[in-house]
Amino acid sequence: MARRKKIYEGKAKILYEGPEPGTLVQYFKDDATAFNAEKKDVIEGKGVLNNRLSEYFMLGLNNIGVPTHFLRRINMREQLIRSCEIIPLEVIVRNFAAGSISKRLGIEEGTQLPRPIIEFSYKDDSLGDPLVPEEYITAFGWASQQDLDDIVSIAIRVNDYLSGVMYGVGIKLIDFKIEIGRIYDGDFMRLVVADEISPDSCRLWDIKTGEKLDKDVFRRDLGNLTDAYTEVARRLGVMPSNVTPATKPTLIN
Amino acid sequence: MARRKKIYEGKAKILYEGPEPGTLVQYFKDDATAFNAEKKDVIEGKGVLNNRLSEYFMLGLNNIGVPTHFLRRINMREQLIRSCEIIPLEVIVRNFAAGSISKRLGIEEGTQLPRPIIEFSYKDDSLGDPLVPEEYITAFGWASQQDLDDIVSIAIRVNDYLSGVMYGVGIKLIDFKIEIGRIYDGDFMRLVVADEISPDSCRLWDIKTGEKLDKDVFRRDLGNLTDAYTEVARRLGVMPSNVTPATKPTLIN
Repeated sequence: MARRKKIYEGKAKILYEGPEPGTLVQYFKDDATAFNAEKKDVIEGKGVLNNRLSEYFMLGLNNIGVPTHFLRRINMREQLIRSCEIIPLEVIVRNFAAGSISKRLGIEEGTQLPRPIIEFSYKDDSLGDPLVPEEYITAFGWASQQDLDDIVSIAIRVNDYLSGVMYGVGIKLIDFKIEIGRIYDGDFMRLVVADEISPDSCRLWDIKTGEKLDKDVFRRDLGNLTDAYTEVARRLGVMPSNVTPATKPTLIN
Repeated sequence: MARRKKIYEGKAKILYEGPEPGTLVQYFKDDATAFNAEKKDVIEGKGVLNNRLSEYFMLGLNNIGVPTHFLRRINMREQLIRSCEIIPLEVIVRNFAAGSISKRLGIEEGTQLPRPIIEFSYKDDSLGDPLVPEEYITAFGWASQQDLDDIVSIAIRVNDYLSGVMYGVGIKLIDFKIEIGRIYDGDFMRLVVADEISPDSCRLWDIKTGEKLDKDVFRRDLGNLTDAYTEVARRLGVMPSNVTPATKPTLIN
């Protein structure tokens, strides 16, 4: 892996040059950050879990015809993806109030929203990924109106699908974030779901107990993050046994 | 005036019951507030100036066929308006970056935007009038999609008109805020420009010098606010001589 050229290193993942043109290797780190990286930690096994879970969700989306950047998982921490041009937006879909919308509008966390709400943040760490109106997006050319319409359609499908997957295993999908990439093929361009889908990018509450099974466990110091993610993986049948600390060191060294 | 029933008191204006059904008297106070009322002061003559200037702009809009709540000015501090149901949004139109968009996106103040940008804040002092995506507006039922489309059309017309008025007297319209009300007539509803249009609700920069002629003079302690507003009124020929302190006490006592 050391021979591969590093293309980009983010807070939780690294992108390396892929084996073929148009591909990249996405490596999942164990680093956890929150509040624009003001809070940081290393959570053993998180990268392995998210690699597995993101594979699981991306394959599921591919199966229902929602295009994603995912090609195949390579090993415990790496997956092969299609290289794409990331649209600099966090596409956030909310079914229940939590986090920033609760704060912004004074709505108690867990309150069901009148309908799913889609919102956008501008991806810029130095600005703290600010919420932006759609007007900003088209005015500054981050995406066209046609792109935005397509992104909203994709976001609604992903929400329906993920809500269903989670409901099936007793989990409420409170909200989630996706990123969208552009892939070019000659004169054609299409939008795909990129980045990752994992408990790092979703809020997941146990339907019965309300227990949080997502990154809020880390953000709010509610317990052991790996335990929470492992519980999600276990319910979904995503081989949690492979992510025990015992097997991990051989993977990251 | 004391005999009239007070309907509502805001930070800069008071609404009293009007002489006929469906009307209200809007009284302009001298109170200036900023940063969600964390900064406060009384600026002698501001209310008189804003009453005059808002009359001037609202009449101008009526003349070009943009409906407003304005009926007629009553005296130095009061105007007769049509009673309407205020949509709980601040409709903000930006031509150049300044204030919150500059902070949010890291754009230098005064930078021309790629095109005019319309954004919405949810009118709620306890929440600090937060910026909200259009999705929130329709999801929570603050306005329908049809209302929003109509509001955007009105906002664009107001922007064109005000930009022209200001340009004619050597002033650059950086941005402004309007509020929109609903007036019902039997089964019919129409939207009108409500509240006020004044240097309290616009950013106005001298085209040549860049000097600020708006409420930022107060927000940022840049000098005498009455002088700035008087300069705007003077350029527009809006009888600034009547607002000298000498004539004011008889009006507010």
